[in-house]
Formats: sequence, structure tokens, C-alpha cells
Amino acid sequence: MAKNQVKEITDRDQDFAQWYTDVCRKAELMDYSEAKGFIIYRPYGYALWEGMKDYLDDLFKKTGHQNVYMPLVMPESLFLKEAEHVEGFAPETAIITIGGNEELAERLIVRPTSEVLFCSHYAKIITSYRDLPKKYNQWCSVVRWEKTTRPFLRGSEFLWQEGHTVHKDEEEARKEALDILDIYEKLGKDLLAIPFTIGIKTEKEKFAGAVDTYSIEALMHDGKALQSGTTHYLGTGFAKAFNISFQDKDGIVKNPHQTSWGVSTRLIGAVIMVHGDDSGLVLPPYLAPIQVQIIPIQQHKDGVLKACEELKSELLDAGIRVNIDDSDKSPGWKFSESEMKGIPLRIEIGPRDLANGQCVVAKRYNGEKTTMDLSIVGESVPAFLEKIHEAMYQNALMNVLDNTRTTTDYEEFKKIISEKQGYVKMMWCGEEACEEKVKADTQATSRCMPFNQDPVGDICPICGKPAKHLVYWAKAY
Amino acid sequence: MAKNQVKEITDRDQDFAQWYTDVCRKAELMDYSEAKGFIIYRPYGYALWEGMKDYLDDLFKKTGHQNVYMPLVMPESLFLKEAEHVEGFAPETAIITIGGNEELAERLIVRPTSEVLFCSHYAKIITSYRDLPKKYNQWCSVVRWEKTTRPFLRGSEFLWQEGHTVHKDEEEARKEALDILDIYEKLGKDLLAIPFTIGIKTEKEKFAGAVDTYSIEALMHDGKALQSGTTHYLGTGFAKAFNISFQDKDGIVKNPHQTSWGVSTRLIGAVIMVHGDDSGLVLPPYLAPIQVQIIPIQQHKDGVLKACEELKSELLDAGIRVNIDDSDKSPGWKFSESEMKGIPLRIEIGPRDLANGQCVVAKRYNGEKTTMDLSIVGESVPAFLEKIHEAMYQNALMNVLDNTRTTTDYEEFKKIISEKQGYVKMMWCGEEACEEKVKADTQATSRCMPFNQDPVGDICPICGKPAKHLVYWAKAY
Repeated sequence: MAKNQVKEITDRDQDFAQWYTDVCRKAELMDYSEAKGFIIYRPYGYALWEGMKDYLDDLFKKTGHQNVYMPLVMPESLFLKEAEHVEGFAPETAIITIGGNEELAERLIVRPTSEVLFCSHYAKIITSYRDLPKKYNQWCSVVRWEKTTRPFLRGSEFLWQEGHTVHKDEEEARKEALDILDIYEKLGKDLLAIPFTIGIKTEKEKFAGAVDTYSIEALMHDGKALQSGTTHYLGTGFAKAFNISFQDKDGIVKNPHQTSWGVSTRLIGAVIMVHGDDSGLVLPPYLAPIQVQIIPIQQHKDGVLKACEELKSELLDAGIRVNIDDSDKSPGWKFSESEMKGIPLRIEIGPRDLANGQCVVAKRYNGEKTTMDLSIVGESVPAFLEKIHEAMYQNALMNVLDNTRTTTDYEEFKKIISEKQGYVKMMWCGEEACEEKVKADTQATSRCMPFNQDPVGDICPICGKPAKHLVYWAKAY
Repeated sequence: MAKNQVKEITDRDQDFAQWYTDVCRKAELMDYSEAKGFIIYRPYGYALWEGMKDYLDDLFKKTGHQNVYMPLVMPESLFLKEAEHVEGFAPETAIITIGGNEELAERLIVRPTSEVLFCSHYAKIITSYRDLPKKYNQWCSVVRWEKTTRPFLRGSEFLWQEGHTVHKDEEEARKEALDILDIYEKLGKDLLAIPFTIGIKTEKEKFAGAVDTYSIEALMHDGKALQSGTTHYLGTGFAKAFNISFQDKDGIVKNPHQTSWGVSTRLIGAVIMVHGDDSGLVLPPYLAPIQVQIIPIQQHKDGVLKACEELKSELLDAGIRVNIDDSDKSPGWKFSESEMKGIPLRIEIGPRDLANGQCVVAKRYNGEKTTMDLSIVGESVPAFLEKIHEAMYQNALMNVLDNTRTTTDYEEFKKIISEKQGYVKMMWCGEEACEEKVKADTQATSRCMPFNQDPVGDICPICGKPAKHLVYWAKAY
């Protein structure tokens, strides 16, 4: 690979945080705006989000969900209706106090999340069991005031989808929360090439207002975890606070059970930090806005551009997202740019290749270069992409397995967290005090309690009391 | 048609404004939210917007446009940079003054439109002719403080797309503004079944900050016009205000020429008011979220639901959006609901039809009912939809032609506007005073100066001075 030849970025293992910011900027995924904490999603970055959105939207619709759009703002009094939820979000809100040159009678909260907007609407439109379930989703941006921000990972505004559903009983609502978790897992496996670690959040880490929060966690290259999406079983708390009720088949008026769930542009951060390398972004093929970059060598020579165009047209017909870089930059510069942008396959065609009826195919994720017959390269691309996707997923999975350690000893736990990072599987008594101790000692937090509770001991190594849960611990973004 | 049988709505010709609001509510397109002026886009209403969005997004991408996402907010100082533009929008802005429990050092304007955000970004990323053109678009919501609001037509928040492009010279920029106008016209013709009247806005009616504004105007059933979309040639005004410049091939540093353009959820209002009738919404087939509603009659009888399912499956295979209403409501109620929602085709299947191997097909737009062989109904649906679309477009076009009148006499003009509404073609001297007089006398405004300037006289009937332009005048939403 043409390492950092044209656009200098920091080495990944030298300063991971700086490398991350460099990639975000140099791959032209984002830019900073004039409003602190608010970023610009540039075309290449936004295209990654569109890829995820199209994939999810299709699955949401196939499973009976409908898109809606709720207002950007809510009156402060509405926002204050559900106490736990307010406690979680109030410190982070942006507030509109002036509209049309006048001080507003009631301040408007810019949505940090839309539970209360959905609930106040549901209270109006749900009266009977016939109105259930309601399975709504919206694609929008939300605003949460953040002091320290990082592109895609933490910002004052981010793009996301938020699902909000209403069900006749707990069983159906919990099933919904788990079904969506399956969809998120599938997104990781099939599109992002990221294996998620899945489980339930502890009381301390769950969503404000939820009974249970389920989460998908991903392990970054630097050994830190990234919470990548959550689904919540909300119970009847919001329904009671907002007077949502329905007359059931048995004639009794009941509060329905709710869920909410979301993934955000954070997932772009996950893709960067799981797959990227010293030459920049490395994109999984099915997410990549451009899957194949054709680079002509000595493009002024007879037949070079024509051969590139023919290959492009063949690939387009096969449904491949392909581009020719026929700019007046040098091939070396073009290679670097293609690498920085993480394009999965680069195909080089020059006069010498042409004379031999050949071309050079370079795989971005491992740098492998092969010479191939031009006559078969087009038909080979789909299989290349599939193999690259599979290899990237397996690499990411190996990284998780290699960096998941088990201990029954708290001293060893502290050592692993400080020296090696990654996940540590360790038992826990269920007390928040122990979570707080872990955080104070190591900065690590409980990421989730996996569904498959295969105990690794009987006592909580933190306090010595009997253990209740197996927990994945890690430092996290 | 089962007129107003189940869900009472006002007669269209009795009180058009009330009829409109009734349809918006009863067809479940929208609901009011707790924040005054902010509406909820319910699933059926949002699906209409998604239909338009998918159609346009595809054409934008095919013509080389890229999607981005700019921040929701801009610092007040940035907003104030381009003077004309500020004059147009400042009175309508919503302002965030508090973030994270603290008074902000600089107030943040919630975007009423995003010219200044795009410009400040373009100033950073454009330096050379190699960086041009830039053809960006974004799908988002914008906030404009409105005192009187109507669903989809005028609200404090609406959904739209806003294109912002940068070009090397005036010729290319003007071509872009006109090319997009063609795309909007095509949207009307192919998807919405609405013929737009197209032309240039007068100085008084143009966008704050534009050199020229082009617009698409539609004529509603009540004879009022609705500005349905605009494209602007911005010249170099924004480029100068924001220091956007590029070094051209000739080595000279120049300001580029810009455009911006947009359509919004207003188009939903246009669809309602062009096509709707006393039974509710009437949707053009290619926009309709459900194109065919199958209604079983005596659905408990042997074979009825099975026949419905078979037809549904056949239609799904043909790419038709189809639904069976097998709820426990009466057929009459189901007919009314299907009509209220404007579903283009209703197919009724009952035991007697089945015995004869037949079904009943009802067209929503003209109420026509025919009995057809079940064996051929499935394959006939695409042709039905095509004919309905064509007929709806022709009806709308006839309405425009029937309600476009020409005059050279100002007294006659006032009479037409007050008695018949519709467009009036009349010459104009080019002076704003005459536009103001027309507005004061009749409430009508100049809608546009058509590209095809076929003069209908030599003098301006308003002031008697020599005429410069042919203008379409109308009362408008």
C-alpha cells in the first residue's frame, strides 16, 4: 500500500484518537461547522449513513413498521412529564426562547429524543385493542448539548432513527425489543462487517425511563468498546405518565407496554475504528459508496480509457458501484486517495496490461495485488467483494475473541484493563457500588450482561459477595 | 361513491378551507402537536412525502447531485452575513439561547434555509476550477416562525429538500436552475399528476438574495394558485459575502456563481387540493402508498379471503402496492375509508362474484365501477393505473386551461379575480407600484412571467404605461 504518500495521517497505533480525527477529515467524511459541536456530514460520510439507512428502513418496513415525522420541538411542560426521563436528558437540552422576534410564552425544548412526542400522540390515537400494535419509526436528527465532542461519536447534533412502539402486553413488547436487536445484529453482520456483543444493560447504564435496555456493543481497534445501538423495553411508565390506555378484548381498560430503540451516525465511527488502518478508511464492500475504483495508468495512451469505460459499463450492469478516476492527478496520488477513502477494490489498467489483455486488482483491506485477465475481471468482482466482506468480518471477530479475557480476580482485572484493554468477562454481585468502584479504579464500565449467562465464578471479585451476573466490562467511548 | 357515509367531512364547494382541514385529519395525513404551528406527519402523510423524496432523490443523483447534511443551527453572526437574505428571513427565525443549562455566549439560529451554512462550507473546500461544480442537496426540516398556519401549506416547521450548487460561470449556474425546474415539472407530470405553470418571479416576489427566481405554480380546485417549488440563480452575491473564490484555468481568481432550489411538504397540500373531492383524498396512482385496496364481502364465507389473498399475491408479484382490508368493519365502512384515503383502485370480492368467477373494480377518481373476470383482473391493474394517472393529469390540465383567462382591461381583471378566481394573463409595466395596486385592489399577486412571452397587449392596464412583461396573476396560498 502507498502508505500516507499523499495525505499525511497519524499512525494508528501511535495516537489512535488523532488517527481517528485525521481519517474523518482526510477521507472527507465530515467537516466542523461554525457552531461548536455541530458537524457537517460531507457527501462521502453522508453516503455511509444513507447505506445504513436504506438497509435498515427496508427491514423495518418488512417487519411492519411505519415511518412518521414528529416535530423538532416540544413545550417544556410536555418534556417534564416523565420524571426519570427528564433526569436523564434535562442537563443536555438546547432551548428555544425566541420565535419571530418575540420572547416565547413557553420555552421549547429541541428534541434530545422523542419519547414524549410519540407518547402524547399515542394518547390521542389509541383507544382500543384494535389500534394495537403501533410500530412507528422516524429518521431525524436530535440535539444533546455536549461539552467535549468527537466526530460521529459524540456531538451536539447527530442523525439517527428512533423507533417507538406500543403493544398490548409485556410479552409482545419485549419480543419487539429483541426482534429489533436481531435486525441491528444483522446490520452488523451483513453490511458493516462488525460482530456485535449483545446483552442487557445494568440498572446504572440503562436508558432513563426504561425497565430494561438491550444493547449492541462493538470493540474498536484500540480495545475500547463502543455502544452502537440500544433497544428499550419501557414497560408502562410512559403510558401512565401520558395517559395512554386502551380497552382490551375483555372490556378492561389497560395501559399498553412500550418500546423504543435507535442507532445513530455513531455507527460511522464504529466502521472507521473497527476496520481502518494506517492508510485511512477501510470500508466493508456492501456499505462502500464506491466498491470499485478503476485507475487508468498513462491514460493518454491509446485504448486505456476505452478499456476502463468498458469495464465500468460491465460492472454497472452487474449492479456494482464503480468509478473511474480519470483526473489529471498522478497514479500514485490516485492510489493514495482510493486507499484513504477505503474503496474495497482498485483495478489498474495501463498500456502494458492492455497489451497482455490483463489488469491489476488490489484489495484494500489486506493490500493484496493480483494480475488478472481483463476478460474475466468483471465477472469476478461480485465474488471478490463477498470474500472481502467475509474476511473483514472474520478479522473483526478474531479481534473481539483475542481481546476478550476472563478473570475471577479483581487485581488481575485492573491489570488487564490498564495494560491490554478489550473486554473482560467477570462476575458481578448486582450492586451499583461495585460498578462505581470499577469505574473509579479503572475507568471501565459494565458494557452488558450477555444473554448467554455462562458463569465464570460464584462471587463478585470486586466486593467478595455472591455473584449474580456475568458482565462484559470495558473502557468505552 | 359512498359519500361521507362514515367519516363526515365538509362539502368541498361549500367551505374549501374547512374541507381541506377535514381531509388532512380524516385521511390521517397529519395531526397537531403540542407546540403551536408544528405538525405531526402521520404514517399515511409521511408516505406521500417519501414517495416524492424517492422519486426526486433518484433524479438528483442521476444528474450528479450528492446528498449532505448541514447542522440544524448557525451562529447569529454567520446568519447576518448576507444582508438581503437576512431581511427576508430574520423576522421568522427561532432562536436557541440556552444549551446545557447555560445561557449561550452567541445565540444560535435554527435554520430557516441553509444558504449561509452551505456558503461557509464552500468557502473552505473550493479553491480551484477543479473543485467545480459542486452540486449538493440535503433532505431536512426547516423552521420559520409563522403566526397563522395550515397543515402542509404554512407551518413553523416543514420538511423539504434544498439544493445548493456552485458553478464556474453564470451560464452553467442558470442552466442548473432550469434543469432542476425540468425535474420539478417531471415530478408533477409523472408522479403527482399536476401540470405546473412555469416562469420567472418578479423582483417583488423573488427569493431574498436571488438574482432570479424561477417557480412552478399549481392551480388548486378553488381557483387559487399554490407556489409549489422554486429554483434560484443566486449570481455571485453569496460568494462575495462569504468569500467563496476559485482560481480559474486562466489563472485568475474569480467568485463562482451559485444556485439554490427546493420543494417541500407543501406538495402534499397541492395533491390534496388539486385532486381531492367530497369523499376525501384522491391520490394519483404512482404516488399512492396503497394503489389497490381489496375488500372482501362476507369474508367469513368459503373461499372469499382465499381469493383475495391469491389476487394480492399476484399483484405483489407485479410490483403493485396492494392491501386487503379484512378488518371486522362493515363493507360500507371499508368503502368509505378506502375513498377517504384516496386509494386509486378498489376491488370487491364476495361469494356471488366468486361463483361467477368475477369481481367488482371501482376507480376512485371518477367512481366508475365495472365487473371483471377474476382471471384477468390482476394483469389488468397496471393498465388501469396508467389510465387513471393520465386521466387525472388531463383533468387537472383542463382545470388550468378552463380557469386561465386573458384581459387587457383592469376593471375586467378585478371582476375575474373576485368572481371566478383562477389565473389571469395580463400585461405589466414592470413597476412594483402596479403589483402593489393589484394586491391592494384584489389580493391577487403576480405568480410568474412565463418563459413563452406571447404578449396580449402593448400597455399595462393597471397604469396605462407601456407593457414589458406578460404575467400570470392569481390569488395564492
